[in-house]
Amino acid sequence: MTVAKAYAAMSASTGLEPTTIDRREPGAHDVEIDIEFCGLCHSDVHSVRGEWGNQHWPLVPGHEIVGTVARVGSEVTEFGIGDAVGVGCMVDSCRECESCQEGFEQYCEVGMVGTYGAVDKRNGDAITQGGYASSVVVDENYVVRIPAGLAKAAAAPLLCAGITTYSPLRYFGVEEGDTVGVVGLGGLGHMAVKLAKAMGAEVTVFTTSPAKAEAAHELGADHVVVSKDPEQMKGARNSLNLIIDTVAAEHDINTYLKTLKRDGAIVQLGMPEKPMPPVSPGALIRRRLAYGGSMIGGIAETQEMLDFCAEHGVASDIEMVDAEDLNAAYERMVAGDVKYRFVLDTATL
Amino acid sequence: MTVAKAYAAMSASTGLEPTTIDRREPGAHDVEIDIEFCGLCHSDVHSVRGEWGNQHWPLVPGHEIVGTVARVGSEVTEFGIGDAVGVGCMVDSCRECESCQEGFEQYCEVGMVGTYGAVDKRNGDAITQGGYASSVVVDENYVVRIPAGLAKAAAAPLLCAGITTYSPLRYFGVEEGDTVGVVGLGGLGHMAVKLAKAMGAEVTVFTTSPAKAEAAHELGADHVVVSKDPEQMKGARNSLNLIIDTVAAEHDINTYLKTLKRDGAIVQLGMPEKPMPPVSPGALIRRRLAYGGSMIGGIAETQEMLDFCAEHGVASDIEMVDAEDLNAAYERMVAGDVKYRFVLDTATL
Repeated sequence: MTVAKAYAAMSASTGLEPTTIDRREPGAHDVEIDIEFCGLCHSDVHSVRGEWGNQHWPLVPGHEIVGTVARVGSEVTEFGIGDAVGVGCMVDSCRECESCQEGFEQYCEVGMVGTYGAVDKRNGDAITQGGYASSVVVDENYVVRIPAGLAKAAAAPLLCAGITTYSPLRYFGVEEGDTVGVVGLGGLGHMAVKLAKAMGAEVTVFTTSPAKAEAAHELGADHVVVSKDPEQMKGARNSLNLIIDTVAAEHDINTYLKTLKRDGAIVQLGMPEKPMPPVSPGALIRRRLAYGGSMIGGIAETQEMLDFCAEHGVASDIEMVDAEDLNAAYERMVAGDVKYRFVLDTATL
Repeated sequence: MTVAKAYAAMSASTGLEPTTIDRREPGAHDVEIDIEFCGLCHSDVHSVRGEWGNQHWPLVPGHEIVGTVARVGSEVTEFGIGDAVGVGCMVDSCRECESCQEGFEQYCEVGMVGTYGAVDKRNGDAITQGGYASSVVVDENYVVRIPAGLAKAAAAPLLCAGITTYSPLRYFGVEEGDTVGVVGLGGLGHMAVKLAKAMGAEVTVFTTSPAKAEAAHELGADHVVVSKDPEQMKGARNSLNLIIDTVAAEHDINTYLKTLKRDGAIVQLGMPEKPMPPVSPGALIRRRLAYGGSMIGGIAETQEMLDFCAEHGVASDIEMVDAEDLNAAYERMVAGDVKYRFVLDTATL
């Protein structure tokens, strides 16, 4: 067992504070990682604040982990000491269901084991603890390699924000010449813009805030539509093959359906807490549209995404944060005041 | 001009009554068809009763038309006198938009010209009149051929109920070994069962009425699930690749989402008059599901569907109706008392 430095929430109301946690000795198939960077995801905020139901306390959040291999178990074949590696939203799954067998571990029919706050059956029902920590031990099957061409800190958010947007872009077959809309310009949205551009698409960003137009163009967006402006929305009608909707707050999908071309789809990635207005069946029927969802990506696809990002020079726009500023960073995330992802420097733990 | 016998509604409250209508002389590209059979579609009832908004009165409904070519215009190349032909839900479209150019005339961006009750711009803004009539004149581009192997009366419902279910089955790539659910066992539902079976799928019928189980099996369904029985619904969980939802009445899609496998889709074909309960984004996200719609099919696809039906011995189960019984037949349709499609014998007009 190793003692790791960490930041944890002790309850839903106390925020994050410094602590230490025990990490297991690496088993035969485990990789021990010295964590260097960990991205801050909105899911972390929801979990730490108990907004997604009660949690196992203390809770160490963080599922955008990048670091260096420190030790490997006797059966580990894929990784060696010193390798740059990453861990995303899951650290295990049943490995036997159809989804696991097909490489879609995120849709494991038994339920994937989340990187934090989950019961880890294969390790004595321990509660998993995340990446706001100095080290972590993970089965090698749930570890990915960070390609040499990627800066480690800027790669961290790829493990969640990157793969969550990459996967639906690939699933819907986005390619050169396609038109892709992105709703919301936060951590996920800014990755969706960069990835869709790297795939050769023409990208339209929808934002409620006219002030974000310049930033959207800087990220590579070809068009920016202020979604509150009916004239601008009218101008975007019938123009898009696919919309990546990153907004988790309640909003009306029907407004965006009109901007899809025939056979277009809108894919929701953010999980709203409140019910959304019903999607009009007539709108779907009259132009053969679809309203779908997507959740992160499988391990192999995550590796594919990292390789794609290295090849195309894509990474997250980040702002580094020290451990003592984590709570303040959460406040800024809730206020939408970050371009576009905070990354914790674990040297400051 | 030709005078045709017909049954028309003179207002939303008067039902159908015998009348005569004028049919234009066939133009250079027109085909004049002696109508032999016309299927009765729920859309006819909604239109005749003004339930889909006010109509141009008098209104001759009917868009599942089968008959014989009586005359052809000078430029007609595809059809000759005596040919067995059909006309479905549309008699024209803009022919210039992307959808028309790609053979998806039903999604014409200007708007397809419905077989009845629509303004026919290319013919002096005449209001189109449908197939409860002794003849009709239609541009050859919107006429399909009834293959020799198909009985004409039983082929009539293929022009709407058939293509409306065939098109999404094809669009979602249903093939041997796939599992397909069908919600509702009416005109569309019974065609969905037959077509999905003919494509090699394993078919589950969802019905609110246990009494329909035997009938569903007779049509070829492999499984029948009474949707009001939570235990039966639980037994069907995670079993289907695609659900064809033919129910137009308000109903809760979320119940059916659970029966889809990962990456499954539910396609709605019936246009509900009232808003439906919102589809859960979480359910879509957690298993990458989609909720979509589909509307009839293009002309080329309609021909493909007819050829497929002839090849696989698929046709509609029909009950013939005389013109004087049309209003009674409508009552029975509304009560769900028909297996599975009424077809008007136009010899009785």
